[in-house]
Amino acid sequence: MGEPSVTERLSTPLLDTVTYPTDLRGFDIPQLKQVADELRSELIDAVSVTGGHLGAGLGVVELTVAIHHVFDTPSDRLIWDVGHQAYPHKILTGRRDRIRTLRQGGGLSGFTRRSESEYDPFGTAHSSTSISAALGFAVANKLKGQPGKAIAVIGDGAMSAGMAYEAMNNAGAAGNRLVVILNDNDMSIAPPVGALSAYLARMYSSRPFLELRDAVKQMARRTLGPNLKRTAKRAEEYVRTLATGGTLFEELGFYYVGPIDGHNLEHLIPVLENVRDAAEGPILVHVVTQKGKGYEHAEAAPDKYHAVQKFDVVTGGQVKGKAGPPSYTNVFAKALIDEARRDETIVAITAAMPSGTGLDKFEAEFPDRLFDVGIAEQHAVTFAAGLAAQGMRPFAAIYSTFLQRAYDQVVHDVAIQNLPVRFAIDRAGLVGADGATHAGSFDVAYLATLPNMVVMAAADEAELVHMVHTCAMHDSGPSAVRYPRGEGTGVPLPAVPIRLEIGKGRVVREGKTVAILSLGTRLTESLAAADDLEARGLSTTVADLRFAKPLDHDLIRKLAISHDVLVTIEEGAVGGFGAHVLTWLSDEGLTDNGPKVRTMRLPDIFQEHDGPAAQYVTAGLDAPAIVATVLEALRHNSVGVIEGARA
Amino acid sequence: MGEPSVTERLSTPLLDTVTYPTDLRGFDIPQLKQVADELRSELIDAVSVTGGHLGAGLGVVELTVAIHHVFDTPSDRLIWDVGHQAYPHKILTGRRDRIRTLRQGGGLSGFTRRSESEYDPFGTAHSSTSISAALGFAVANKLKGQPGKAIAVIGDGAMSAGMAYEAMNNAGAAGNRLVVILNDNDMSIAPPVGALSAYLARMYSSRPFLELRDAVKQMARRTLGPNLKRTAKRAEEYVRTLATGGTLFEELGFYYVGPIDGHNLEHLIPVLENVRDAAEGPILVHVVTQKGKGYEHAEAAPDKYHAVQKFDVVTGGQVKGKAGPPSYTNVFAKALIDEARRDETIVAITAAMPSGTGLDKFEAEFPDRLFDVGIAEQHAVTFAAGLAAQGMRPFAAIYSTFLQRAYDQVVHDVAIQNLPVRFAIDRAGLVGADGATHAGSFDVAYLATLPNMVVMAAADEAELVHMVHTCAMHDSGPSAVRYPRGEGTGVPLPAVPIRLEIGKGRVVREGKTVAILSLGTRLTESLAAADDLEARGLSTTVADLRFAKPLDHDLIRKLAISHDVLVTIEEGAVGGFGAHVLTWLSDEGLTDNGPKVRTMRLPDIFQEHDGPAAQYVTAGLDAPAIVATVLEALRHNSVGVIEGARA
Repeated sequence: MGEPSVTERLSTPLLDTVTYPTDLRGFDIPQLKQVADELRSELIDAVSVTGGHLGAGLGVVELTVAIHHVFDTPSDRLIWDVGHQAYPHKILTGRRDRIRTLRQGGGLSGFTRRSESEYDPFGTAHSSTSISAALGFAVANKLKGQPGKAIAVIGDGAMSAGMAYEAMNNAGAAGNRLVVILNDNDMSIAPPVGALSAYLARMYSSRPFLELRDAVKQMARRTLGPNLKRTAKRAEEYVRTLATGGTLFEELGFYYVGPIDGHNLEHLIPVLENVRDAAEGPILVHVVTQKGKGYEHAEAAPDKYHAVQKFDVVTGGQVKGKAGPPSYTNVFAKALIDEARRDETIVAITAAMPSGTGLDKFEAEFPDRLFDVGIAEQHAVTFAAGLAAQGMRPFAAIYSTFLQRAYDQVVHDVAIQNLPVRFAIDRAGLVGADGATHAGSFDVAYLATLPNMVVMAAADEAELVHMVHTCAMHDSGPSAVRYPRGEGTGVPLPAVPIRLEIGKGRVVREGKTVAILSLGTRLTESLAAADDLEARGLSTTVADLRFAKPLDHDLIRKLAISHDVLVTIEEGAVGGFGAHVLTWLSDEGLTDNGPKVRTMRLPDIFQEHDGPAAQYVTAGLDAPAIVATVLEALRHNSVGVIEGARA
Repeated sequence: MGEPSVTERLSTPLLDTVTYPTDLRGFDIPQLKQVADELRSELIDAVSVTGGHLGAGLGVVELTVAIHHVFDTPSDRLIWDVGHQAYPHKILTGRRDRIRTLRQGGGLSGFTRRSESEYDPFGTAHSSTSISAALGFAVANKLKGQPGKAIAVIGDGAMSAGMAYEAMNNAGAAGNRLVVILNDNDMSIAPPVGALSAYLARMYSSRPFLELRDAVKQMARRTLGPNLKRTAKRAEEYVRTLATGGTLFEELGFYYVGPIDGHNLEHLIPVLENVRDAAEGPILVHVVTQKGKGYEHAEAAPDKYHAVQKFDVVTGGQVKGKAGPPSYTNVFAKALIDEARRDETIVAITAAMPSGTGLDKFEAEFPDRLFDVGIAEQHAVTFAAGLAAQGMRPFAAIYSTFLQRAYDQVVHDVAIQNLPVRFAIDRAGLVGADGATHAGSFDVAYLATLPNMVVMAAADEAELVHMVHTCAMHDSGPSAVRYPRGEGTGVPLPAVPIRLEIGKGRVVREGKTVAILSLGTRLTESLAAADDLEARGLSTTVADLRFAKPLDHDLIRKLAISHDVLVTIEEGAVGGFGAHVLTWLSDEGLTDNGPKVRTMRLPDIFQEHDGPAAQYVTAGLDAPAIVATVLEALRHNSVGVIEGARA
């Protein structure tokens, strides 16, 4: 039997023959097209079962196939910025058999991850890290005298972050070993904002895609490299820059090529081959793609299909969760809108997350008072500090994990100056399927160590309303309120918010023997534990401290001197609320012959993605764990000698 | 008597008549020139007495005069990036009488500071914050419907930081209320690096300064604003961009004007007047200045006169401190060079501080293995993570306070991936004259809360050598060593470094009643306190824990169960070492009827600048304070009841 005809060949599923990128390398362009089509179907089908990020992956199907076809992965290091567009990459790099475990407990991560595959040389989940990391790989290879390029694929939204610019500015160090592919889909999660976005749009609108012939010619000139005389080269660059419009990147020292249709393999592949073989660098390839490409429902509504629940492939209908209490995000947004109606100095700032933070609703009512600064948390916080210094009341709404990006600005521009910037810290604590990279584990530790900070945590959605109001009214310095991902507990929302007294907690349940001091979300579990302890004859107090800083000294003293066991609990890492309580107790001598004190907190690991309930069990922050901690403390009766077992 | 002649006028000191900027507003250009000359002399004279930042201030004397002459400060908000070039500004804004108290305890800050003057609308001490803050002021004014522009003066070095780019990208929001003056002196502290610097140099070298006529014409076109038809305007912009070369800034949405000689008031003032009156914006004015201008010694060696000790005005000779032990910075540099000689995978990264970190010495021996990435801490850390992922052993040498800029990168790119990046954290703890903005108070708290981190603190310079070696050898995850500003304690340096066991401390002095657990620099004071306590009949153990993470559990347990009082001490804020010790003690039930535990740490304030010794007394971290803490603990004999007084 001879070679199959093109028709025969195309009717045979090809993706089944591809386990690793090497399996792609011999394919011709029609075969690669077929692989891309099958890959797209497989991606839609898998995500319809698991939920997760869909639109971004659909946009890079052809790009993924082309890169793995052209470059020598994994020796060439491929880094997908943010990593949520890497599902097609996972399918092509030995993980197709597990793709339906995405984001499930024990399953594949929703981002790239070093421990998962040698094809994931660098874990990416926060935006805009890829160029810096790729530069590290490229420079290491150069120093070691070993071959290998580094390729960063970064979206136009991610390009607005300062660290991408810092990396570009420094990229000359790597020479031609560094390839940056700008995946321009005019859309990060929300439509992107700012000058860079406008710049790219101008570039794209002012000229059609490069024709294959032009693109190859453009790159071919590059491969001539140092043979051209300097003067000739400068003249050529001048003309090229005018022609292509890539001036901004050229000024930052990159060779620019593009824009190229990112769904057209006949253009992509020869250009990438030329890039691979280029004699000089670094090189930026400007590829234009469409988010959600090839799935009509996602093309029509890219924001709704950025991250999806399970859905029906044919209708596009996403599974809705059963109707429950409102999400903390929505409660925050409504509370802030209510405050803004009362007070026209209230403004809100988001770093490219208007929908994730709920501030899209705020914007609908106050379009002039919402500032979406792009993926730029550092700027967001100092911009808010400037607003506060000129008499506004800014709320910077930033997820706990992303506020890490602006830590110095919180310290230097807000806390030292004691400026009343309000931080609305969503996604504080464990976050389920997004896993360790998105967990908000450290904010209490990194904020409560700072002088001048007021740090609140909401135990339920009604508390959140009070705390937003309390922040709004607190003009004498910075304040922060943290609240979790997901739905509230179902308590009624207050008609009128209360201004809480700064640094004062509340006793939710009175008892005599055991005191549970809860900060934030674990209040419900604390109350359940109290029921259990009560059933065991242990009279239990439960207090909601509300403030990690300043602490309610009066309440803590009162509870410490009147109970046998004092347990703190928080959804945060070591060094936070419990550590501050212990520190103050010892300052006051209340640990000298005082109650038995235990602190419950997130474990000292980066906890794996899993369902939220399972995560709390793993973390040991549920009611049974609280009961066990209390019982252990009671059994423990002298220094260094523990009766009975302790986990 | 009529008007004085020009000659008479110029012979009369004019600066004496200027207390506030309003006093400058009626002056003509010859008078302003005279003020500038006198201001320069006053600045040199003052800094010769106080020490401090000299070169940057000398470079902006004319610019300072021009801005205050043209703009309506303090209603127009003027923000000096970094703030160390603001001494001339302080002299012109009501603080001349205190200028010789600069950086002294109780005196003027070496940076701008809101609490010092209404002419300092925003405190700046870390680089690259000014555009974000100015944007906040501009937007607040716009929202409030009140007049007022915001002017940011930012150096070319500071422009390499991502947050400056983030702010530029977002600046359209403020319209013509935002003026950014790029103070291009081709020098931040070290000569700047990266593509932006090369870009500015190209721009500057390719054409002469704008002639006055051209500059004014350029700006005059701007003031016509929206009257010009769109098409005509686009054509004009195209031509202008070609002519001026300010493309990069134009692409980011700024109107670019320059370059202008920043020492020529005849050019500066009319251009700034036009900028002030422009109808559209935002505007970037590119001003070229010379660091150290007008003082021959500083012009000749701008790096040496960036920050100075007291000096002789005539000879330029700086007062040298008495010969003492080597600085921690130098010990670190030498130790790292020794490691690098043994191991060619060791590389070093600095964010624009080659001299401050001592890595200039490393570069002299290993020019290919030192990476100065510019003021770009975020990129520095993720770049290091990429290097580590490709098998190198990177040391990222970043001051404690500046590592705050890269916190998310430490968490997300290093700690989560458990990559062996080594952090050399200089200036950890109090820093004397630089004050709160530069103190390294929070690194133990913000690092020890992270899983996978190894956090060491050097008690003396010999320990630092061992710890650098220990970092070098620790390949299984990230590690950090913190060490203070200034000189070592004078101990002999080891000929051969020891690899310390991770998480193991050492007992320096054995006793029975009191145990002092020291982390880092306070060991000497702990030993002095032990002498005092011993003299009072209290047998005292002193341990150097070496590691804030992981803690030496065996040692802490042993000391806890065998002593009556246990005191921790550290040069860091609440939530750090002491909090972690307490947390572990309570985990283990060792606080139940255990020893009396007290934690000594930096106070919960942003501590004012002062001499180092005075700062330790204020902080309560000297030997007498340790003794007092121990004695208080011993007097304190039952829960909630304290015998005798406690501060």
